[in-house]
Amino acid sequence: MWFFAVKMIPGPAIEELRALLGERFSVSQAVRAHHGRDESYFAPVPPEAVAFARSTDEVACIVAVCRAHRVPIIPFGAGTSVEGHILAVHGGLALDVSQMNRIVAVHAADMDATVEAGVTRKQLNDHLRDTGLFFAVDPGAEATIGGMAATRASGTNAVRYGTMRENVIALTAVLADGRIVHTARRARKSAAGYDLTRLFVGSEGTLGVITEVTVRLHAVQEALSAAVCSFPSVKEAVDAVIETIQSGVPVARCEFLDALSMRAINRHFKTAYPERMTLFLEFHGSKAGVAEQAAAVQAIAREHGGSDFAWATKPEERSRLWHARHNLYFAGLQLKPGARYVSTDVCVPISRLSECLVETQKDLDRSALPIVVAGHVGDGNFHLGILFDPQKPGELDEAKAIYERLVARALAMDGTCTGEHGVGLGKVKHLVAEHGEDTVSVMRDIKRALDPENLMNPGKVLRI
Amino acid sequence: MWFFAVKMIPGPAIEELRALLGERFSVSQAVRAHHGRDESYFAPVPPEAVAFARSTDEVACIVAVCRAHRVPIIPFGAGTSVEGHILAVHGGLALDVSQMNRIVAVHAADMDATVEAGVTRKQLNDHLRDTGLFFAVDPGAEATIGGMAATRASGTNAVRYGTMRENVIALTAVLADGRIVHTARRARKSAAGYDLTRLFVGSEGTLGVITEVTVRLHAVQEALSAAVCSFPSVKEAVDAVIETIQSGVPVARCEFLDALSMRAINRHFKTAYPERMTLFLEFHGSKAGVAEQAAAVQAIAREHGGSDFAWATKPEERSRLWHARHNLYFAGLQLKPGARYVSTDVCVPISRLSECLVETQKDLDRSALPIVVAGHVGDGNFHLGILFDPQKPGELDEAKAIYERLVARALAMDGTCTGEHGVGLGKVKHLVAEHGEDTVSVMRDIKRALDPENLMNPGKVLRI
Repeated sequence: MWFFAVKMIPGPAIEELRALLGERFSVSQAVRAHHGRDESYFAPVPPEAVAFARSTDEVACIVAVCRAHRVPIIPFGAGTSVEGHILAVHGGLALDVSQMNRIVAVHAADMDATVEAGVTRKQLNDHLRDTGLFFAVDPGAEATIGGMAATRASGTNAVRYGTMRENVIALTAVLADGRIVHTARRARKSAAGYDLTRLFVGSEGTLGVITEVTVRLHAVQEALSAAVCSFPSVKEAVDAVIETIQSGVPVARCEFLDALSMRAINRHFKTAYPERMTLFLEFHGSKAGVAEQAAAVQAIAREHGGSDFAWATKPEERSRLWHARHNLYFAGLQLKPGARYVSTDVCVPISRLSECLVETQKDLDRSALPIVVAGHVGDGNFHLGILFDPQKPGELDEAKAIYERLVARALAMDGTCTGEHGVGLGKVKHLVAEHGEDTVSVMRDIKRALDPENLMNPGKVLRI
Repeated sequence: MWFFAVKMIPGPAIEELRALLGERFSVSQAVRAHHGRDESYFAPVPPEAVAFARSTDEVACIVAVCRAHRVPIIPFGAGTSVEGHILAVHGGLALDVSQMNRIVAVHAADMDATVEAGVTRKQLNDHLRDTGLFFAVDPGAEATIGGMAATRASGTNAVRYGTMRENVIALTAVLADGRIVHTARRARKSAAGYDLTRLFVGSEGTLGVITEVTVRLHAVQEALSAAVCSFPSVKEAVDAVIETIQSGVPVARCEFLDALSMRAINRHFKTAYPERMTLFLEFHGSKAGVAEQAAAVQAIAREHGGSDFAWATKPEERSRLWHARHNLYFAGLQLKPGARYVSTDVCVPISRLSECLVETQKDLDRSALPIVVAGHVGDGNFHLGILFDPQKPGELDEAKAIYERLVARALAMDGTCTGEHGVGLGKVKHLVAEHGEDTVSVMRDIKRALDPENLMNPGKVLRI
């Protein structure tokens, strides 16, 4: 499927890397295969070798070897990309930072933490358990914080707590030419020069290797309560969300799941939710505040035909609820054994969300493929998980056609082709459709200025 | 004071600009003088000419003429910089966008608005009056939204609603080579390529001319209440703030003013506030929520020796309070007739704020200059307004020495030299001290990639 010139890593580079890393450098088939596949629908493309780094300085040494021998570098965290970010389409080395998993510092008083890029969100939150603080960004996957920064990830909490864009305070990155960049101090705000933090957040490994990240933490509120509410139609569910957002209620989570998503969850988790259009909601605040928010949203939901809230207030009930939501990806895969997903990720202004989802639903109704629809609708962001059988090329073609129509629909509504998954391999052309050639050419200029030899994750985000 | 090579704008460029703009192009002394001075302590440096643009396309035409004749371009909004941003230290043209003051669109349902760069924050909020929405970023000055985006401005609301970094959704900018960049769609979040929005926010006119900005709006909450609380010492006031922030109370505003600031306000506005260390607080939420927040903060304040809250709940009382805060700059100037300010703008992690302010206070106590201290302490950001007599060079030297010591103190505490005013002319060297040479060299690479001839606001932010 991919036709790229893959050049072998030269022998001297292999030797230098082996001398540097010993057993933490590998050319074994198994290790390469593990680093050549992600959760996207793209065919695997293994790297030619894998290096496991343990420090920023070691990353700099690896990058120096690669630069000297013009070996492409693909930063690798947990491999949970859904956009082909880690596929070695130009050959080269996977630079795995998963062993860089030290929590460097927690500044509880400042509500921030500095972690190495390989720390996962779950690891950080486990570490924070007794501090009264948490790290809010929660993509479904057990991603690394470095990877989440690289793709500008978000998740269910973004409607209240923001995405990685808002939650990264500073980061350290190693550039192709060996410079080590510390983008910012720990102050909560700064006007000191260009915002390199935000430039690296979402750069998908194409500008440098992120090795350390300082993230914002949030106070765990006194009361946390989750609720499930089902609706007669997608329009009514989404209209309730839009009205909630517009009312200024600081809802903490606001997730839409369609009837098929609910069926997938019920099957996989042995739950008994109504298999209807559903919202998973969560409220954070003081006890009185949560009660007030919940009452306001229940009233709005009812006006749109919503059911009475089914509450999940105990910690274990809430955990179960969000575990199901976070694992919808895997639950959905069970609907069609042997299938894979084409995932979409559009995000539109919320005033257009209802229209976008209704039109999309009509399009889906014409397809025989099972398609789960779920999303962070408080942000205007939703996903289709289009299940196709990789053995049947017609199904992939059909899935891609749905995908293309959805992106076109979102762009026509002033939306984006990707709310949180990133551009990766699959949306390089959509990026141009979204921003126009002039704007994308500015991104190319920046890429060339910082990585003139195109060694950093080549083929992703931009055609150079 | 400034020694720069100023080259005259060539005659043909003057003729082309006059042909293009007619009376909206000026070389008059008065117009140039108006565009050559800001609110900083730097000596005025007028541009050689001023062009008043009325559209993005017209900005592009002006930039084309300037590029052809290598004329430096200084974007100009309201001229309220406190860092010398608009001084024509390399000569050239002031490109005034103040006539680009159209509110292009208000998308109330999406809680955003698109405005031309010359719209002021007050103009936008007046326009929004009946929508139930407001634009939250509020520097003291009546700045333009384009200028605020360019300097990554913030203000009293930032502790809850964020700075321009969080409140700009998208913008349009004209680059030195004539490309017009639309950085993003209106979706609330996006992972579509490099974050050019955030790159231009805070670029201080050095990467291009911002001509249009889409900003996030916020819902005006049901209840708004402001309170004044005074403290025996700076340490106690600031410790109360730190504890408030750490408790997770979503305080909307949290401003520190020292005793001298309060005296300046009392004199200028004929008010009768206690002339002690003071916090101006504001709470936004439901009626019950505001009462709950206020009770929590009052309890914290009391533990730190704070007075009972003096409430400002009626709209006119709140307006008066914040009008006084926003005009502290001018009130302070009256303390020493004929004086000007050296303003500082450090921001430190809040855990270090108390220590930073106490050490700074000791330093100030050794100076005979009147110095007002005030700040957005919920963010860790505070300002000194050091009043000096421009006729007495020793006073400027003393003010600068205090400034230098404060920046060094803040950097040693993992803080930044500028929380919201920007780098401008005065902090070019501090930027290197703050970020290190490697990181600043990356900023220079980006500048050179987008403006290879250094035509865009040369001399600001970076030495090229």
